[in-house]
Amino acid sequence: MKAEIIIIGDEILNGTTLDTNSQFIARQLEALNIEVVRRSTIKDRREAITQALFEAEQRADVIITTGGLGPTKDDITKKTITEYLDDELVMDEEVLEHVQTFFAKRRKPLLDINRLQALVPKSSLVLHNQMGTAPGTWTEKNGKVYVSMPGVPFEMRYIVENGIIPKLRERLDDNCIIHRYVHTVGVGESSLAQQIAHIEDSLPEHIRLAYLPSPGVVKLRLTGTGKDEKRLLEEIMVFENQMKELLSEVIFGYGEETLSSAIGKLLTDRRATVGTAESCSSGYIGQLITQTPGSSTYFEGALVTYSYDIKEKLLGVKHETLIEHGAVSRETIVEMAVGGVRNLKVDYVIATSGIAGPGGGMPNKPVGTVWIAVANKERVVAKKFLFGSDRTRNIHLTGVMGLDMLRRFILGLPIRE
Amino acid sequence: MKAEIIIIGDEILNGTTLDTNSQFIARQLEALNIEVVRRSTIKDRREAITQALFEAEQRADVIITTGGLGPTKDDITKKTITEYLDDELVMDEEVLEHVQTFFAKRRKPLLDINRLQALVPKSSLVLHNQMGTAPGTWTEKNGKVYVSMPGVPFEMRYIVENGIIPKLRERLDDNCIIHRYVHTVGVGESSLAQQIAHIEDSLPEHIRLAYLPSPGVVKLRLTGTGKDEKRLLEEIMVFENQMKELLSEVIFGYGEETLSSAIGKLLTDRRATVGTAESCSSGYIGQLITQTPGSSTYFEGALVTYSYDIKEKLLGVKHETLIEHGAVSRETIVEMAVGGVRNLKVDYVIATSGIAGPGGGMPNKPVGTVWIAVANKERVVAKKFLFGSDRTRNIHLTGVMGLDMLRRFILGLPIRE
Repeated sequence: MKAEIIIIGDEILNGTTLDTNSQFIARQLEALNIEVVRRSTIKDRREAITQALFEAEQRADVIITTGGLGPTKDDITKKTITEYLDDELVMDEEVLEHVQTFFAKRRKPLLDINRLQALVPKSSLVLHNQMGTAPGTWTEKNGKVYVSMPGVPFEMRYIVENGIIPKLRERLDDNCIIHRYVHTVGVGESSLAQQIAHIEDSLPEHIRLAYLPSPGVVKLRLTGTGKDEKRLLEEIMVFENQMKELLSEVIFGYGEETLSSAIGKLLTDRRATVGTAESCSSGYIGQLITQTPGSSTYFEGALVTYSYDIKEKLLGVKHETLIEHGAVSRETIVEMAVGGVRNLKVDYVIATSGIAGPGGGMPNKPVGTVWIAVANKERVVAKKFLFGSDRTRNIHLTGVMGLDMLRRFILGLPIRE
Repeated sequence: MKAEIIIIGDEILNGTTLDTNSQFIARQLEALNIEVVRRSTIKDRREAITQALFEAEQRADVIITTGGLGPTKDDITKKTITEYLDDELVMDEEVLEHVQTFFAKRRKPLLDINRLQALVPKSSLVLHNQMGTAPGTWTEKNGKVYVSMPGVPFEMRYIVENGIIPKLRERLDDNCIIHRYVHTVGVGESSLAQQIAHIEDSLPEHIRLAYLPSPGVVKLRLTGTGKDEKRLLEEIMVFENQMKELLSEVIFGYGEETLSSAIGKLLTDRRATVGTAESCSSGYIGQLITQTPGSSTYFEGALVTYSYDIKEKLLGVKHETLIEHGAVSRETIVEMAVGGVRNLKVDYVIATSGIAGPGGGMPNKPVGTVWIAVANKERVVAKKFLFGSDRTRNIHLTGVMGLDMLRRFILGLPIRE
């Protein structure tokens, strides 16, 4: 099965708004083994829509459009798609009731333009939108599927997950699809690929392995398709377990876990608390930790200490240490971490000090030099990293590596210098 | 003049990588008054590339492609485009020398696949790539322009800014284009539009006004086109000055300024220092401040105080205040701000405490309730905000509003509750 995605809207086309919808939809389709053959962004005009639909149906079986359905838009998109499908718009009573309830709950007056959102192509199936008022629609014609959705990202996502994916699954020959995720940290994609090459080579046709890399982290995804869910899962688990054994300590989690939630679990299990003493990452590690709901039970706070003064005052770093070795040094980072444990009164502290860039580099300490330390009351471990020249990436990598060092510290795994 | 953008690459098409290139290119074209009629993302395959080029040239005068030019890719993109233009690939000596120098500087061995990057279509003009090794090319045929660039974002941006924009300008009838930016904070787009409606209505044909909104901030862009640069600028400045007078205190900057750099300027001018005492924004304001190069001269540090304990210990918030009024209250935020000035020893402090969500809401303090205070040694001002239900947006708005409150505090502008 092949698919095309058509994004309708001038504000996307001219770059005012960044399009994230087509990435989301493409990922969802790809996870179903449905090949995306093209994505287009077009104007909210009759001719552009008609042309794009015509071109898409030459190449694809499923044509998904988003945008052009908001209440303040003229209704050119809905009208054009309906006409293109030789259909007519009719009022859907269920959608109308939903729109009315939606406005009543928010104590907002229901305008005529809002009522018009309940108009749908007569032969279409309504994909209900619990997040907003414009419904999605699913129309089948000459063996092709035409899906229309609003462009508001969280409304679109709701309709994809609750309306489109289940219906596409029904149409797939192998209607059972299983994804398993294994998350690794601190090892590059090519090095991972080398380590598990023989596992990848031994995969049968219906099980595929994908590498989903982001700075510092590589997600491994096993996707299996088949008819018997139980048997398929057993098959996949053989390979997942092989990867587990081989990669062991670089794996921080599975499924929906993130590095932040994995740290949260480790801390919660031990009823332990954490804080940070950050310089170059300027609070980013605290933010990563607090991205996990419920983190307030173990995250106490962060000390972002930019200046020498503040490092001395809030973390008790010795003035001589700073003068003699500089802020970006083993000596300083160790004192920062130890001072953090003492002053934040937490069980664990992650400390950072480095040169994120763009300025501040020195011959012996180039931009990208970052010291990270992890400490508890008994011990402290420090490690020097050499990242690159991009400030945002350096800060992000400092966060990821800081969390990974804490994970290893808690689990008693080696932290290699 | 009309343009189309074609993004070539499976990793974009299937959603592994988010495409930001086409937004960047579209914005640059739009700023030149060049209409983008379609954007497409296609596979790195001969047939897909040929079809997309053919379709695009039916609609557009300028066809811009990115991607498919990296050294590890097979050279299908470059070959296909060259063949499509009835051209042949030749070795460009200048590019070859650049590639050789590029590798020599990095002490990396030059492989044959790297050398092949210097192959360009014979009739094309080379758009040099100082950021990498794959050059861009500009080919004209039958009155159409075909541009090919690598897909690595910072390489692409370099070629757009230094190669494509200047060449497109030459082709425009009105080859003088001026953009002027006025940045506002704290007022919604529709309210702004109402206030300056009469200015917008009085604009002549060749001067346009655009609203570029993001949470909390609206950029106003005046774009003028003409032949006489000096006269055009004078014309535009009449309208900019009208807006300046009318909007006055909600304007925080012009041109390339950001809220962070505007704050930096205010502090530098006064040789003053700043720190933050953050709860719900968990260090985000510190990060905003440090986004401005050179911020280490005025930013001392941040205290991210999540727990009651840490608020008491590091900021001296009274235990009774927290028990009696809760962490999200006027009483607590005032003590946080005052404690921050005292303990960080800075001239100004921004303090935040709120419920960013998704959990933690209460009937009288729903998710999105945020208290922000700004203080110096003499005075403190606190204000309550009611943002929405989205955590990321709430944290972002807390940051923007916190910086705006500091701006108003320093300038002696009123802060309305």
